[in-house]
Amino acid sequence: MASLRVLSFAVSLDGYSAGPDQSLEQPLGLRGPELMDWFFPTRTWRQMQGQEGGETGVDDRMAAQSFHGIGAWILGRNMFGPIRGPWPDAQWRGWWGEEPPYHTEVFVLTHHPRPALAMQGGTTFHFVTEGIDAALAQARQAAGDRDVRIGGGPGTVRQYLRKGLIDELHLALRPVLIGGGEPLFSGLDLHQLGYEVGERIEGERATHLILRRRPADTAR
Amino acid sequence: MASLRVLSFAVSLDGYSAGPDQSLEQPLGLRGPELMDWFFPTRTWRQMQGQEGGETGVDDRMAAQSFHGIGAWILGRNMFGPIRGPWPDAQWRGWWGEEPPYHTEVFVLTHHPRPALAMQGGTTFHFVTEGIDAALAQARQAAGDRDVRIGGGPGTVRQYLRKGLIDELHLALRPVLIGGGEPLFSGLDLHQLGYEVGERIEGERATHLILRRRPADTAR
Repeated sequence: MASLRVLSFAVSLDGYSAGPDQSLEQPLGLRGPELMDWFFPTRTWRQMQGQEGGETGVDDRMAAQSFHGIGAWILGRNMFGPIRGPWPDAQWRGWWGEEPPYHTEVFVLTHHPRPALAMQGGTTFHFVTEGIDAALAQARQAAGDRDVRIGGGPGTVRQYLRKGLIDELHLALRPVLIGGGEPLFSGLDLHQLGYEVGERIEGERATHLILRRRPADTAR
Repeated sequence: MASLRVLSFAVSLDGYSAGPDQSLEQPLGLRGPELMDWFFPTRTWRQMQGQEGGETGVDDRMAAQSFHGIGAWILGRNMFGPIRGPWPDAQWRGWWGEEPPYHTEVFVLTHHPRPALAMQGGTTFHFVTEGIDAALAQARQAAGDRDVRIGGGPGTVRQYLRKGLIDELHLALRPVLIGGGEPLFSGLDLHQLGYEVGERIEGERATHLILRRRPADTAR
């Protein structure tokens, strides 16, 4: 079976994967952009924005890899937009403009139904109200033999981790102190859930850590 | 004034600086030794144990630096031993045998008075019952123009951080998942407390991060 992966997922030294107070003006929360300051300078990101240039080192390689072989995405609702509660109308079409960077089927977790939304460039947003297992089943179906990537946010990643469903978690540890916001590890015993750190790769602006499930016999 | 420093202080990727269930048999708690697996292979550590050999790379350099210019130490009680509550007698003389690796005055925080304990090699343990400010004042007095180093544990470091008393915090981030034990960052807003990450130095087995106080004008 294809893998369920979390890739290029930033976490601060003090354990936060999103800053506090997300809003229309601050999609990543207060100080949240500091989490992404390894990704934004890369050529990979700049190309996604239709821009020239950008850095081409280790961080860029890690960023580029995280888009390879992905057949579908899963996003928590806050990754799609700042609106909470029922959708007032169909006006909000995501943070990314008319051509989002996914280019696959994207399954957005929400408690509030909404018709699928086809965007330019091959991205279609599906709004899944039946929970994380249903979203995963639909994403796997859409992805075929390619992998499913969870884009975040931290709450969504934690839900899938807690069920042991994630095969690979690539964290980009940023040497910054966010001080508050959404924690990634808090209250999760990743050792008991069966994970270990398989690789550590030092990038220019982040330390990349690849978490995978331990072979079962080393559990203790 | 000389600095108050925490040096070569290990933290796991998931934010723990000590494993759960410290005991006589497990001074560092369950899986705690994984936190120190960057320090134990170094020449610095082996020399402290009277052993030959050891690695001499970046981790060793960071370990060695953390003993330079230190005029006194502060330890939380669990760093001194596994005994909780009143001292039953004077039999317990620390984790380290008759010649502990400090070679200075060492101030141990405890609620239970006990006479000072002079060991071989110039280490004397003083048991301070008047709290962290008193311990710091006594340690500064003993250190003169040299620095005071806090050895740990995490609870002690957190108490001094919360008061903004620490000038420099060198963390050795280990790519391991401890899953439980004593968290370092949890509930502490290090940004609000005025700290920032000044340097990131990649070692063989740990990523070294140097936290310092931000210049006051960048606070927000």
